[in-house]
Amino acid sequence: MWFQKEITLIPKARGFHLITREVLELLPELKRVEIGLLHLFIKHTSASLSVNENADPTVRSDFERFFNRLIPEDQPYYEHTLEGSDDLPAHFKSSILGNSLSLPISNGVLNLGAWQGVYLGEHRNHGGARTLVATIQGEYD
Amino acid sequence: MWFQKEITLIPKARGFHLITREVLELLPELKRVEIGLLHLFIKHTSASLSVNENADPTVRSDFERFFNRLIPEDQPYYEHTLEGSDDLPAHFKSSILGNSLSLPISNGVLNLGAWQGVYLGEHRNHGGARTLVATIQGEYD
Amino acid sequence: MWFQKEITLIPKARGFHLITREVLELLPELKRVEIGLLHLFIKHTSASLSVNENADPTVRSDFERFFNRLIPEDQPYYEHTLEGSDDLPAHFKSSILGNSLSLPISNGVLNLGAWQGVYLGEHRNHGGARTLVATIQGEYD
Repeated sequence: MWFQKEITLIPKARGFHLITREVLELLPELKRVEIGLLHLFIKHTSASLSVNENADPTVRSDFERFFNRLIPEDQPYYEHTLEGSDDLPAHFKSSILGNSLSLPISNGVLNLGAWQGVYLGEHRNHGGARTLVATIQGEYD
Repeated sequence: MWFQKEITLIPKARGFHLITREVLELLPELKRVEIGLLHLFIKHTSASLSVNENADPTVRSDFERFFNRLIPEDQPYYEHTLEGSDDLPAHFKSSILGNSLSLPISNGVLNLGAWQGVYLGEHRNHGGARTLVATIQGEYD
Repeated sequence: MWFQKEITLIPKARGFHLITREVLELLPELKRVEIGLLHLFIKHTSASLSVNENADPTVRSDFERFFNRLIPEDQPYYEHTLEGSDDLPAHFKSSILGNSLSLPISNGVLNLGAWQGVYLGEHRNHGGARTLVATIQGEYD
């Protein structure tokens, strides 16, 4: 009924990336779950997980531009500046967008809407490989 | 121990709406759970689920006004514009506010604070009927 | 497999506070879980729970300054004003940052990244003692 493992994503450029397929390929165990939940938790404070539109790539590039304006770098009142201009805004973005997801599983597949996909928000300029804890629970067939 | 079904909400106008009662009426199965969690997942990328104040309706209208200012329509740098002025901001609002909730169940009822209710954020001008996946898990009596 | 209790935190000043240790000391039951999830739900609409950087205290003070600018008090269009200047912005902050967390448990400890901690965002000037519903589920040893 419970399954848990850590998975590591291929490093991504700064921006928003659809990772639904990459995550599912690392979690073949999910196919056995009839009713359940997949919990994804990213073990970093400068990246985010969210669910949004999976078709038009300009949605993801508009996300990057919008959040860079909403949460600007190099504000004069910032004190946590030693790790670079992109670091503190990345922390804010991570808490605003969230660093975990719970997704329903139905009959061995994620029960997302037709236009939904999982976004990794990579908020550092050079974030490297990101590690997630994936926890699957539910009723198995 | 596991129960899952899709529920469809009555269409709502753009804005924030208290849906606690509507959701609970669609989920009578929840009353049998002694200790557990209700997971709600909205299968759309232009609406949101959150928990906030359940008493004064001006909180909900202030939410609508505030988020419309924080996330404006028709910015010159937006590229995803073919689906209307309200579409891209609706995607941003959905990811900022979130598209799922996990709520504690205690003795057959949602264990919310006295002033808490579930908000549907309808971020499109004409969003239509929204579908949620409701997953209940826990210990039954 | 299921454990649930309400815990009450020591009152905090307005701002962001690391509460990982305080929460874990109130939940010794977590040590028995091999694989599982801790769900924390704050029963208030003017405080938030999130996960962020656990080392440099200026990250937390920069959070407070940033979110006060993003979500200002006393805007002329606010209508829900009877509970004080800090009240309505606290509601917005709670929904933007979130009022619950699901955290993975592995071998009796929270499986967070090395630099991650749990933040309580206290968004009222005098918020008092905050109550959380803690729900632990998983496989016990």
